Amino acid sequence: SEVKKIAVIAGDGIGPEVVAEAEKVLKRTEELFGYTFETEHALFGGIAIDERGTPLPEDTLAICRSADAVLLGAVGGPKWDNNPKELRPETGLLGIRKALGLFSNLRPAVVFDCLKDASTLKPEVLEGTDLMVVRELTGGIYFGDKLRRQGEHGEEAVDTCVYNVTEVERIVRQAFEIAGKRRGKLASVDKANVLETSRLWREVVNRLAPEYPQVEVEHVLVDNCAMQLLRRPSSFDVIVTENMFGDILSDEAAMLTGSIGMLASASLGEGSYGLYEPVHGSAPDIAGQGLANPIATILSLALMFRMTFGYENAAAAIEAAVAEVLDAGHRTSDIAVDKSKAISTTEMGDLIVAAI
Amino acid sequence: SEVKKIAVIAGDGIGPEVVAEAEKVLKRTEELFGYTFETEHALFGGIAIDERGTPLPEDTLAICRSADAVLLGAVGGPKWDNNPKELRPETGLLGIRKALGLFSNLRPAVVFDCLKDASTLKPEVLEGTDLMVVRELTGGIYFGDKLRRQGEHGEEAVDTCVYNVTEVERIVRQAFEIAGKRRGKLASVDKANVLETSRLWREVVNRLAPEYPQVEVEHVLVDNCAMQLLRRPSSFDVIVTENMFGDILSDEAAMLTGSIGMLASASLGEGSYGLYEPVHGSAPDIAGQGLANPIATILSLALMFRMTFGYENAAAAIEAAVAEVLDAGHRTSDIAVDKSKAISTTEMGDLIVAAI
Ligand SMILES: CC(C)[C@H](C(=O)O)[C@@H](O)C(=O)O
Ligand SMILES: CC(C)[C@H](C(=O)O)[C@@H](O)C(=O)O
Repeated sequence: SEVKKIAVIAGDGIGPEVVAEAEKVLKRTEELFGYTFETEHALFGGIAIDERGTPLPEDTLAICRSADAVLLGAVGGPKWDNNPKELRPETGLLGIRKALGLFSNLRPAVVFDCLKDASTLKPEVLEGTDLMVVRELTGGIYFGDKLRRQGEHGEEAVDTCVYNVTEVERIVRQAFEIAGKRRGKLASVDKANVLETSRLWREVVNRLAPEYPQVEVEHVLVDNCAMQLLRRPSSFDVIVTENMFGDILSDEAAMLTGSIGMLASASLGEGSYGLYEPVHGSAPDIAGQGLANPIATILSLALMFRMTFGYENAAAAIEAAVAEVLDAGHRTSDIAVDKSKAISTTEMGDLIVAAI
Repeated sequence: SEVKKIAVIAGDGIGPEVVAEAEKVLKRTEELFGYTFETEHALFGGIAIDERGTPLPEDTLAICRSADAVLLGAVGGPKWDNNPKELRPETGLLGIRKALGLFSNLRPAVVFDCLKDASTLKPEVLEGTDLMVVRELTGGIYFGDKLRRQGEHGEEAVDTCVYNVTEVERIVRQAFEIAGKRRGKLASVDKANVLETSRLWREVVNRLAPEYPQVEVEHVLVDNCAMQLLRRPSSFDVIVTENMFGDILSDEAAMLTGSIGMLASASLGEGSYGLYEPVHGSAPDIAGQGLANPIATILSLALMFRMTFGYENAAAAIEAAVAEVLDAGHRTSDIAVDKSKAISTTEMGDLIVAAI
């Protein structure tokens, strides 16, 4: 079959450990499904700052650009937290999103059965929660002009939030399409009672809505959404929102599932190109000890199969293997009730590989 | 004793009903504590749009300005939701904050014993939660320049977020002082890894911190704060943040207590001037039926006594009366387990008046 090229960015902290397990899964699917993958590793984040003096080296970008998809572990850590802006892992993250045109961040928030007690929410409230936050990722206040200047009242700082109709339309269309394939409910989140960008956003949503008659749209103010996610999480299907609101709400949604260590995410550009990564961070405190849970990264690979390659069978097989291993009671220490019975990162990876 | 002038804004929906009960409490404290209050009613919000063609008439502003404090019920409702901007209740709200210089919004989020089961959080997670969000209220993206223009990619909208050191310093100082009088913990919330205004904010916090050695400060990124509020609400004491983040986080914090119908808030300016209002909205669906719970408004009055007038004894007496009435099992329908035993708005007000 066709050769698919995957750029692999292990990153910092537990990144290399969890990515290694996803690569085992990748190999196994080649054997089982006859796929051919070509992987190329690239430096990114803190390790790239240390080894190359920049969080996003040019050749990393070149490797990503020549690939069909990117698998990312995690980046960042306290080591680089006080660096100047150009030498911080986050700057690499914002840079790669912009450079690769990854304008859409999909953050599914689902509850894993084996983790439903891990949530701080009551189980009856959580019951049935399965939502997807579609976050605009390359616009808004993240990428608008920023400056410092002397004003009347001393030094001042300015951030600019800009959205044009084209940017809003492409993310909103995608959200409508995703909602159409799910339960047909779309909550568009904005602050239209205060922000001009939100009023533009809302106009676009209202203009496109008639093209998706099978999707029921509601407009929700961001403050109200932060409340409703807590009060009735299971009533949401797809939430679409701008970059900054999406940053906050997708993390809130992930945390309320209690399953944050198991959640995958996709950042998509035009066409089928995408970058896939676990929602969790680089967890420097447990790095290198074989304690990390590779499931979120393995599920991110499954998302890549589904969304970029259209390998639905393999995606489903990976997801089923993860479910099977969990059902059999295997747990890494982050999700183990009895920590003394916890298995290691590589053991978890091997079990999933064997179950596919 | 000195005459205190209070501007009373009943507003829309259940506003007039809950404010009427707070006024009964006001009268009772005159009898009991020998205070003299002069109240003047003013039109504001939807009703002002209907009767005067503007949400914030000039004479309302004059009444507020000549008063020592403002008591506000609630404003807004679906009736005015599709009005042009100048004819919307929210525009009045933003206008009154700016005109009266109310730069600080205090949003205490506490759990009422009788309502702890109303939260969607597990009781053991909620246990001990008692936090205060200090939100900057007259700056940031709410009040920066806004515009529409034609760009390269079609129409675009712009919002500008501006903060100067003077604005940041006054709100941060206030938060340090509040934290010093509480449990001595301050979480300053920003997005310093992305926003220039957040970097300025963080610099100010770090510069002021040595002046408040008894307060322990941590910097928390806004996305992380949205998660930590869910994971460990009781570990927060005071949270200080800019306008937009404060809007989102104060509502999230209020909702997780489960007590949103009972929470009071204060918006303060220079000196002791303040506007006090319940956190809940105007609830047009239950307006005029005697179903509204007046407790949040009555507790807002207690906050006014404490913060603007320094009437600590009366404030404490009102709070104790509320607690006593609740302990005795009296409930309005919003908080009643057995709705058939619920009492009305005026009955609740009368019971609290009697208990002072
Ligand atoms: C690290 C930071 C710049 C980033 C963001 O805010 O987008 C992160 O929080 C995320 O959500 O991926
Ligand atoms: C109505 C709206 C403009 C207002 C705000 O965002 O400040 C409200 O949400 C609030 O928090 O008081």
